[in-house]
Amino acid sequence: MEIDEQHDAALAKVEEMMRDAKFAMLTTREKDGTLRSRPMATLQLDGEGNLWFFTSESSPKIEEAHQQVNLCYMRTAKQDYLSVSGAAELVHDKEKMQALWSPWLKPWFPDGPDDQNLALLKVSIMGVEYWDAPASDTARS
Amino acid sequence: MEIDEQHDAALAKVEEMMRDAKFAMLTTREKDGTLRSRPMATLQLDGEGNLWFFTSESSPKIEEAHQQVNLCYMRTAKQDYLSVSGAAELVHDKEKMQALWSPWLKPWFPDGPDDQNLALLKVSIMGVEYWDAPASDTARS
Repeated sequence: MEIDEQHDAALAKVEEMMRDAKFAMLTTREKDGTLRSRPMATLQLDGEGNLWFFTSESSPKIEEAHQQVNLCYMRTAKQDYLSVSGAAELVHDKEKMQALWSPWLKPWFPDGPDDQNLALLKVSIMGVEYWDAPASDTARS
Repeated sequence: MEIDEQHDAALAKVEEMMRDAKFAMLTTREKDGTLRSRPMATLQLDGEGNLWFFTSESSPKIEEAHQQVNLCYMRTAKQDYLSVSGAAELVHDKEKMQALWSPWLKPWFPDGPDDQNLALLKVSIMGVEYWDAPASDTARS
C-alpha cells in the first residue's frame, strides 16, 4: 500500500484510516436508484487526493466517468468511522497497475496485473467526514 | 438491541452482523448527487424485515419518504462485509421510541427518548449482499 505525503488534515485522517482498515465499503448508485456497497482494498492515496483501487472491467459498479461514490472506513476496535465522498472513474494505465500490484491481491484477482479485465478505479476525494465514539462511551477506553 | 426471529437466510445474516457490529454506515444521496455516509447504531431488526435507528429530526439525512439508502456493516476481525439496500423513512412513534430506548444511546441523544428532536429511521430492506475474506487470505485463520 503506497501513501504519498499528505499536507491536508482531512487527507491525513484518510491516510490513517486506510492504513489500519485497508478495506473500504464503496457505495454506488445503480440506474434504478438503488444504493449498493461492496468491499474494496485500498491501494494508494496519492499526493493529489485520489484514492486508487483495483476493479474488474466486467464489474458493473462504475458506468460513467466522474460518477459520485462514497467510501466508508471503520475501525471496530477504536469505534471510529470515516466517510469519503468523491467522483470515480475507471483508469486503464498498465504501468500504474504494475506499480500498485501486490501479491496479497491475488485471492481477488487470481490472474494478476496482466489480467485483461483488470482496471484501476480512481476516486477523487471531494469531502471527508470523521466520527469517533463519544467520550462517555466506556467502550472507548 | 431487539431482534425478532428471522426466517430468511439473508435476514439471518443481517441479524448476525448487526449483533456483532452494532454500528452501520448509512449512505444517503444529497440533492446535489453527493453520496455521504455516517455511523448509525442499529436498534432493531423487526419480523417484517425493517431495520430501526434513532435519528435527530434536525438531521438532514432523510428528506423524502422511501428514500433509497445503503447500510454497510463490517467485522474487522472476521474480515466480512454486508451491504443492505433499502428504502428509508422517518417515523414518529413515541411508544416505539420508548420501547427501543436504551441507556447506552445517551452519548448520542443526551435528552433521552422524550427529546422533541428525536425520530425513528425505518429502513425497509430491499437487498442484502455479503462478502467474507477469500479462503486463501491467511488473515482469516
